[in-house]
Amino acid sequence: MKFGGTSVATIERIQNVARHVKREVDAGHEVAVVVSAMAGVTNQLVAWCKEAMADYDRREYDAVVASGEQVTSGLLAIALHNLGLKARSYQGWQIPLKTDETHGSARIADLGGSTIVEGFKNGTVACIAGFQGVSPDGSIATLGRGGSDTSAVAVAAGIKADRCDIYTDVDGVYTTDPRIVPQARRLDRVAFEEMLEMASLGAKVLQVRSVELAMVHNVRVFVRSSFDAPDAPQIGVGNLPPGTLICNEEEIVEQQVVTGIAYSKDEAQVTLRGVQDKPGVAAGVFGPLASGNINVDMIVQNISDDGTTDLTFTVPVADYERAMAALQKNKKEIGYAKLDGATDVVKVSVVGIGMRSHAGVAAKAFAALAEKGINIRVIATSEIKISVLIDAAYTELAVRTLHSIYGLDQA
Amino acid sequence: MKFGGTSVATIERIQNVARHVKREVDAGHEVAVVVSAMAGVTNQLVAWCKEAMADYDRREYDAVVASGEQVTSGLLAIALHNLGLKARSYQGWQIPLKTDETHGSARIADLGGSTIVEGFKNGTVACIAGFQGVSPDGSIATLGRGGSDTSAVAVAAGIKADRCDIYTDVDGVYTTDPRIVPQARRLDRVAFEEMLEMASLGAKVLQVRSVELAMVHNVRVFVRSSFDAPDAPQIGVGNLPPGTLICNEEEIVEQQVVTGIAYSKDEAQVTLRGVQDKPGVAAGVFGPLASGNINVDMIVQNISDDGTTDLTFTVPVADYERAMAALQKNKKEIGYAKLDGATDVVKVSVVGIGMRSHAGVAAKAFAALAEKGINIRVIATSEIKISVLIDAAYTELAVRTLHSIYGLDQA
Repeated sequence: MKFGGTSVATIERIQNVARHVKREVDAGHEVAVVVSAMAGVTNQLVAWCKEAMADYDRREYDAVVASGEQVTSGLLAIALHNLGLKARSYQGWQIPLKTDETHGSARIADLGGSTIVEGFKNGTVACIAGFQGVSPDGSIATLGRGGSDTSAVAVAAGIKADRCDIYTDVDGVYTTDPRIVPQARRLDRVAFEEMLEMASLGAKVLQVRSVELAMVHNVRVFVRSSFDAPDAPQIGVGNLPPGTLICNEEEIVEQQVVTGIAYSKDEAQVTLRGVQDKPGVAAGVFGPLASGNINVDMIVQNISDDGTTDLTFTVPVADYERAMAALQKNKKEIGYAKLDGATDVVKVSVVGIGMRSHAGVAAKAFAALAEKGINIRVIATSEIKISVLIDAAYTELAVRTLHSIYGLDQA
Repeated sequence: MKFGGTSVATIERIQNVARHVKREVDAGHEVAVVVSAMAGVTNQLVAWCKEAMADYDRREYDAVVASGEQVTSGLLAIALHNLGLKARSYQGWQIPLKTDETHGSARIADLGGSTIVEGFKNGTVACIAGFQGVSPDGSIATLGRGGSDTSAVAVAAGIKADRCDIYTDVDGVYTTDPRIVPQARRLDRVAFEEMLEMASLGAKVLQVRSVELAMVHNVRVFVRSSFDAPDAPQIGVGNLPPGTLICNEEEIVEQQVVTGIAYSKDEAQVTLRGVQDKPGVAAGVFGPLASGNINVDMIVQNISDDGTTDLTFTVPVADYERAMAALQKNKKEIGYAKLDGATDVVKVSVVGIGMRSHAGVAAKAFAALAEKGINIRVIATSEIKISVLIDAAYTELAVRTLHSIYGLDQA
C-alpha cells in the first residue's frame, strides 16, 4: 500500500491511513506500507537547501529531504499501534533499498525485502519511508520527486507482493481526462505498456519510472482512491475494489482496440525550413540540442523536389527558448533558410495495445480530426499509440472527438 | 563544536554557524560539528507522536524526532560548501554512534569516530546530527532531551579531540546566577566534579550526562557564546577565547576554595514526625517512594530521647503530591505520628573542589545565614559541596550572602 503526501498531511489523515491498513490486515493480508512526506514538508526542506546554497550538494540535499518520509513512517507505525496492530518503521537504509550513487535521482540497484518478510512472520506491518534508499558508500539517496511510487513498486517486487496498491486522489486511470470528457470511464485494467504511454503522455496518475519498474518485475499495480472510507464495503470488478489494475496484458481478457486518449500541453514545436536534404543534416540540428540536454520528441521530415526539406520536431515547452537560441546560433553550420516555432500546441495521443492487431485505427483518427477542421501539424506513431500535434485551441474538441469515435464514452 | 537549536533556528543562523566553523578550519583545526534540531522542530515532532497515540512507542518516537537533527546536519554541510569548505553530514547510524536499546533515552555503548577521522584526512568537516545513535538491532535511538551535548562529548572522545566547544546562549559558567547576583564572575576553568554539582544543582548550562561522559573520557569541554561575532578577534585567558573550560582539576592551577553558589527550586521537603527510632524504619519510608520511581535527595534524621525521631528529606517538586500520597497510604506500616511537607523551599549549594583541603567552609556558611536570620531546614554535605534547604523567600538573600562571603564577587 502506498499513500502520498496529501493522504498523510495531518495526524488525523495518518490515522485514516492506519484504518485502511487495518482493513487489509483484518482481511488476512501481510502488509507493507510506503508513505511520502506530509504535504508541504518536502517543498520546505528543498527551499532550505536552496537558501543555504543555490547550487546545493545533492548528497546533502538527500540527507535533508529524506527526513520528511522518515517522520511519516514513524508516525504511521504509532497510529497502527493505536489500532492494536504490530508495526515498525523502516528507512531506506534499514530495508536496505540499495541505489546507485546518483544523489537526487538515484536508481534502484537492489530491492531488498527479506527484513520486511521476516517481520511479517510475527504479524508486523512494515511502515516504509518512501522516496529513499542507501547508496554504495552508505549515504542516504533519494529517488527524485514522486519517487515514493517507485519505492512502493520496488518494495512490492522485493517482497514478491501479490499487488501494489497506490492510493491517490483519483479512483483509478480513466479513458481520458474527465474534466474534458465527462463521459470518460474508469478503466478496470490497463496493460503496463499502455500505462507507460498514458503516464508519459500526460495522465499524471503515476510516475513513469514506477510503471517501468512494475513492468520489468511484473508487479501488479492497483490505482485506487485514498478518499474511500476505510471501513465501507468495497465492490469493484472481480475480487477487486473500485480502481484500475495495471498488469501484464495477458491478464486483460477483453482487450479494447483503443484504451485511452491522452494529451500533453508540455510540448513546443520547432520547424526548420529550407534545410539542405543531405546526409549529416539531422546530426547538425540535434547535436547542439543534445549538448544542451534538451529532449526531442516527435520528429518529421518531408522530402521536397528542390533538394531542400522542412524539418519539424517538438521539445519540452520549458526548453523551447533555449532550443531556439541554440539553433539560431548554429544557423550557418546547419544551413537552413528560416526558423519557425510554436508553443500554443498540444500533443493528443490515441493509446491501445489492441492497435497492434487492428488496421485502420490511425486513418480513423485523421479522418475524424479533418472532419472537425483540425489541422494536424505533426504525426508520430508507435506500435501501440498514434500521436498528433495540433493547435492548443482544439485540445478539448480533439480529445472529445477521438474519445467518442473509438467507443470510449460511457454508456 | 556543538550548536544548539537556537543557533540553527534559521538558514541565516546556520550560515553564521558555518562562519564560526570556517574560523576554526582557517586556524588549522580539524573540525567535527554536532548540531541540534532547528528550534521548535523537536517539540512539533513530539507533539505529533503524542497526537498519534498518547502512550507512543519509544522506538518509533526515536525515528520521528531524530529527523530534526538530520535536517540541520545536511543544511550545515551545504552552508559550509557555500563558504568553500569540504563538509559532509553524518547521522548517528553512519558514524556509527552505538547505543543500548533504551529508546527515548539511550545510553552510548560505543563512541565510533574512525569514519570522521578518515574524512579529516582530505580536509572534510564532519557535520553530525546530535541527539541520536543506532541501537543494537539497527534502529535509530535518541539520547533523550538535550542529548546533543552528550553526542558532542561522545564524538569528541571518539575522535580524541583536543577540546569540545559547546556554543550556548551564555558565554560560560558563572560563579552564580547573574540575574540574582550582578557581581557574578565568569569562571575561566571549572573541574568536572564541580561542574557536575553545578549542573545537577540547577546551573542549566550543560546536560549532567554530558559532564559525566566528559569526566569519564577526560574530554575538555569549553562553554562559549554562540552570539560572539564569528570573525571578531577573540581574546580570553591563556590561548582560549572568552568562555569556561571544564577540565580535569590538575589543569586548574589556582584553585579557589569555593567555585560557585548554585540553587534549585525544584525541591520539596517532606517530614515525618514521631517516627519509631528502630531498625527498618528507613526502608519502610523509602521503599514505597522507590517503587513509585521518586528520587529522594537530602535526608536528615535526628535522634531524640523519647525513642521517636523526626525524619526529613527532599523529593523533586513534581513528585511531591505522589510522595505524600504514598506515605499517607503506608502510615500504618511505617508508623509515624504526623506528616508535614513544604514546596516553597529552595536548595542553595556552595560548591568547590578546594573545600576538600580547607576546614571551616561549612561553618562560615551557617554563621552567615544565621546572621541574616535565615532558618536552615535541612543540611546535606559532600566532599566538595554544602547544600542547605531554606524558605524560598530567602533565595536571593542567601545566594548573595554566600557569594559575597567566599570572595566570589567581581572586583
